[in-house]
Amino acid sequence: MARPRRSEATRETLLALGVKLFASQGYHGTGLKQILDEAGVPKGSFYNYFSSKENFCAETVSYYSEFLQHRIVQAEGDTPVAKLLDIHRGLLTLLQQQDTPSGCLLGSLASETGAAQGQLQTAICEGFTAWIARYVTLFEQAQAQGLLRDDLSAVDLTHIYINQWHGAIEQYLLDRDGARVMTSMEQVLTILMRA
Amino acid sequence: MARPRRSEATRETLLALGVKLFASQGYHGTGLKQILDEAGVPKGSFYNYFSSKENFCAETVSYYSEFLQHRIVQAEGDTPVAKLLDIHRGLLTLLQQQDTPSGCLLGSLASETGAAQGQLQTAICEGFTAWIARYVTLFEQAQAQGLLRDDLSAVDLTHIYINQWHGAIEQYLLDRDGARVMTSMEQVLTILMRA
Repeated sequence: MARPRRSEATRETLLALGVKLFASQGYHGTGLKQILDEAGVPKGSFYNYFSSKENFCAETVSYYSEFLQHRIVQAEGDTPVAKLLDIHRGLLTLLQQQDTPSGCLLGSLASETGAAQGQLQTAICEGFTAWIARYVTLFEQAQAQGLLRDDLSAVDLTHIYINQWHGAIEQYLLDRDGARVMTSMEQVLTILMRA
Repeated sequence: MARPRRSEATRETLLALGVKLFASQGYHGTGLKQILDEAGVPKGSFYNYFSSKENFCAETVSYYSEFLQHRIVQAEGDTPVAKLLDIHRGLLTLLQQQDTPSGCLLGSLASETGAAQGQLQTAICEGFTAWIARYVTLFEQAQAQGLLRDDLSAVDLTHIYINQWHGAIEQYLLDRDGARVMTSMEQVLTILMRA
C-alpha cells in the first residue's frame, strides 16, 4: 500500500480554515463537508492529518493558542503596561479587518461546547492556561516596576484583565464599537489597576 | 378555515426550551426539528407562534432578557454594591445547577451570530441595552452613596463590570471554578472600583 503523502502546507491551510469556520459558525455549526469543500481537500486526505472532526478542532485550538502567544511575545512598548495595550490594540485591529468578525476562538468554543468532555476541552484548557501564563509574566513585571497596584496578585489582575477582554469582544460583536473596547481595556489597566 | 388555537403556556414552553437549546448548542447547531420534537409541538402549530427559526430565536432572546432584568429588580442587599454581588451569586448558582451549564444566551449568540443582521441581532442589542440600563441605575446609586469611585462614569463602570461577568462565565465553562468567578467579581467591585 502506498504511504499517504502529507504536506505541512495542507495541514496549515486546514488549520487556518478551521480557525475561521469554528470561530464564526461554532463547533456544531461547522460540518466536515464544508471544511473539505472550502479547503479543496478530499476526505481521505483529511484523515491523513486528523483522526476526527473533534481532533481537528482540538488541533485548531492549539494552532490558535500559539498564534496568540506569539503576539504577546512580539508585543511592542516601553513598559509591560504599554505592551498589554499594544497586544489588545493589535487583536482588535485584526478583528476589525475581518469581513465577518468573530470573537476569540477559545472563548466561543468554551461557551458553546462547555459541557463537552474529551480532547477538545483539554485543548481549550491548555490553550487558555498557556496564554494566561504569558500575561501573568507581564503583570508581574508591571507590579515589580511599580506601574500597577500590588494589593491583588498578578494572577488575579491577569484574570480580571482577560475576563475584561473577552467580555468587551463579546460586546464588540454586537455594536462594532471598537473605541468602546479600548476605552474599557485602558480604564481597567491604567485607572483601576494603577499603582 | 378554523382559527388556529394558541396557548400562552405552549408559547412559554417553547421559549424556555429555546433558551436551553440555543445557549447550549448555538443558533446554527439547533435545528427546528429538535425544538419541535423536544417540545412535542407540531410544525404547523409552531408557526402559529413564530414566523421562522430566526423570529423564534429573537423572541427567545427577549424572554431571556426579561428574566435577567427581573433578577436585577428582585436583588437583595442593604446597598447597591451588595445587590450587584447578590445578582451574580444568584446567576452563578443557577449556572451551577444546570446539568450542562452554558453561558449567557445573549453573549453566546452575540459571539456566534456576530455577523448576522436582522431581527435576531436587533433583539440581542435591545436585550443588552435594557439589561445594561438596569445596572447603570445601581452603579449611579452606589456612586451617589460614596460606595464606588466616581472618577469613571456609572456607564463606564457598568461596562467594565458586565464585561467582567461575561469573561468570567466563559472561563467558568472551561474550569467549573465558581469560586474564581465570584472572586473576580468581588475584586473588581470592592477593591478596584471602591471609593
